[in-house]
Amino acid sequence: MSLPKNICIVGLGLLGGSYAMGLTRAGHTVTAVDVRREAIDCALARGIIAEGAVEAFAPLLAKADAVILGLYPRALAAWLRENQQYLRPGALLTDVCGVKGGLVEEIQGFLRPDAEFIASHPMAGREVSGVEHADCAMFASANFIIVPTEKNTPRGMAFAQSLAEALGFAHITRLSPAEHDKMIGYVSQLTHAIAVSLMNATDNTHLAEYTGDSFRDLTRIAKINENLWSELFFANRDNLVAEIDQFAASLEGLKRALIGGDEAELKRLFIQSAERRRLFDKKSGDR
Amino acid sequence: MSLPKNICIVGLGLLGGSYAMGLTRAGHTVTAVDVRREAIDCALARGIIAEGAVEAFAPLLAKADAVILGLYPRALAAWLRENQQYLRPGALLTDVCGVKGGLVEEIQGFLRPDAEFIASHPMAGREVSGVEHADCAMFASANFIIVPTEKNTPRGMAFAQSLAEALGFAHITRLSPAEHDKMIGYVSQLTHAIAVSLMNATDNTHLAEYTGDSFRDLTRIAKINENLWSELFFANRDNLVAEIDQFAASLEGLKRALIGGDEAELKRLFIQSAERRRLFDKKSGDR
Repeated sequence: MSLPKNICIVGLGLLGGSYAMGLTRAGHTVTAVDVRREAIDCALARGIIAEGAVEAFAPLLAKADAVILGLYPRALAAWLRENQQYLRPGALLTDVCGVKGGLVEEIQGFLRPDAEFIASHPMAGREVSGVEHADCAMFASANFIIVPTEKNTPRGMAFAQSLAEALGFAHITRLSPAEHDKMIGYVSQLTHAIAVSLMNATDNTHLAEYTGDSFRDLTRIAKINENLWSELFFANRDNLVAEIDQFAASLEGLKRALIGGDEAELKRLFIQSAERRRLFDKKSGDR
Repeated sequence: MSLPKNICIVGLGLLGGSYAMGLTRAGHTVTAVDVRREAIDCALARGIIAEGAVEAFAPLLAKADAVILGLYPRALAAWLRENQQYLRPGALLTDVCGVKGGLVEEIQGFLRPDAEFIASHPMAGREVSGVEHADCAMFASANFIIVPTEKNTPRGMAFAQSLAEALGFAHITRLSPAEHDKMIGYVSQLTHAIAVSLMNATDNTHLAEYTGDSFRDLTRIAKINENLWSELFFANRDNLVAEIDQFAASLEGLKRALIGGDEAELKRLFIQSAERRRLFDKKSGDR
C-alpha cells in the first residue's frame, strides 16, 4: 500500500509540524488542526500545510484518508472521543506518543469500528517545541517504531510502514506495547531522569565555566518540557521505577568498590561498561 | 615571561603527544621520554618532537628548561623521585593529572629546591589513547586549570599561563587543589560513574538499535580507560563518594514524586533542571 494522498495532522507541535513538512515535500496534501491560530498561520506561511483550522475543522477530517494525532497522550484520547464522529469512513490513524501502554488499548477500545488506529513512535525530538522549530531533517537518523496490537490489520501495518518510509526514517522496527514501554523506560526515560537529577543534585551553576563535553552531553536533555514529560513518566511509572532501581543498584555497587578500595572490581566495572558501549558503536555505526 | 624554548615531555600518551604537537607548532624545541619505543618513533615520524629517548634520557632532561609530566598520577611521583637528579637547575615542571590532592603536596615536598612544580589540568581528552591519536586541536575549546599552592612563585604561575596560551586553550582559570578536586568530582568523575553504571545496570546491548541521541550522549564516556580512571577515582574518593550520594538522593527524590503521584513536585524538578541547564548555555555559548 502506498501512503494515502490526503493526510490531516491534529496538533501542530514540533513533531506534528515536522510530519507536515516531510509529507508535503513527499507530495501529499497535508491539512492541520490546532488550538493555536499562530501555529496554523506559521505552517501556512512556511508552506508545510495546504490548509488548516482552529475551529470548524470537521471538513478537513472528512477529507482525510489518514490522520496523524500529534497530541500529548491525555489530550489525544479526549480529543478523539469527541471528534471521531467526523472521521472519513475507513480512516487510518496513528500517533506520535512516547508511551503506549494504556493509551493504545483505550483508543482501540472506543474507536469507531470502520476506522483503524495503529500506534507508532518516532524516536526523534529536540530541546525546543512548536511548529516554529519543525524540521523533518531530524528523522533522517532516527528510529521509527510501529507498535501493533492484535486489533491491527495488514492494511494498518502497511500504512504505518509507508508513513515512516515517506518521512525518511533511518530504521523502522516493530515492538508490542509492553516491549516498547520497557525499552523506552531504559533508553529514554531513565536517561532523562538521570540528567534531571544530575542538574538538581546541588546548585552547581557556578561550575559552568569548568564543564567539559561529557557534562554537557549528559545534561543537554535536562532542558525538559515539564508538561509532556510528567505525562510520559506517570504513564510508564512501573517500568521507569524498576529501571531507576536497577541503575541505582549499579551505581551503589561502584560506590562500594570505591569505598572498599576494591581496585579489581572497579576495573571490572569499567571494562564491562567500555565493552558494552563499544558494541553499541558497532551495531549502529556510531564512532 | 614567555614560555622557555626547550621543553621535554615525559610520557607521550594522548595528552603528552598533543602537547608535543602544539608546542612544536608554536616554535618550541620539543623532546620526549617514553617507555614505548613505538611512541617515540611515531612522534618522530609525525614531526611533533625533535628528539626522543626510551633509555639514556638524562641528556634530554639536562637540556630542558621546562618539563611536562604526561604520566598517570602514581607513576608520575615515582618517576620524578628517581630522575629529578637529571633536571636542569631552575627547571619548571607541570603535569596533566585529573586529580591534584595528595599528589601536588607529595611532589612539592620531595622536589629539589632549585626546581619548581606547578600543577595544571588540561580538561581535554578523547575516548582513545596514545600518541598515535594526538591532536592539539582538542585544546581549542577546552579549559586549562592552573592549580597553585603557597609553594609556587610568580615565575611558576607565569610558566603555566604561557604554556596554556601557547597550546591555545579557550579558557584559563585558577583553583586550589581542594577546589579543583571538588569541582572535578562533580563535573567529570560523577558523570563518568553515571555513564558506567548506566551501561552496567542490565545487559541491554540488544537495545542498541533503539537508542537515540540522548542515550548515546550519556554513555559515550562509558568507553573508559580502566587503569587511568581507577587511579583517578581512588585519588579523589571522598569527593566522589559525596557527589554520588548527593546525586543518588536527587534521583531518589524524583522516584518518590513518581511513586507518590506528585505531579506538582515532578514538574518542579523538571522546571528547575531545565532552568539550570539553560544558565549553563548562556554562560558558555552552548546552544
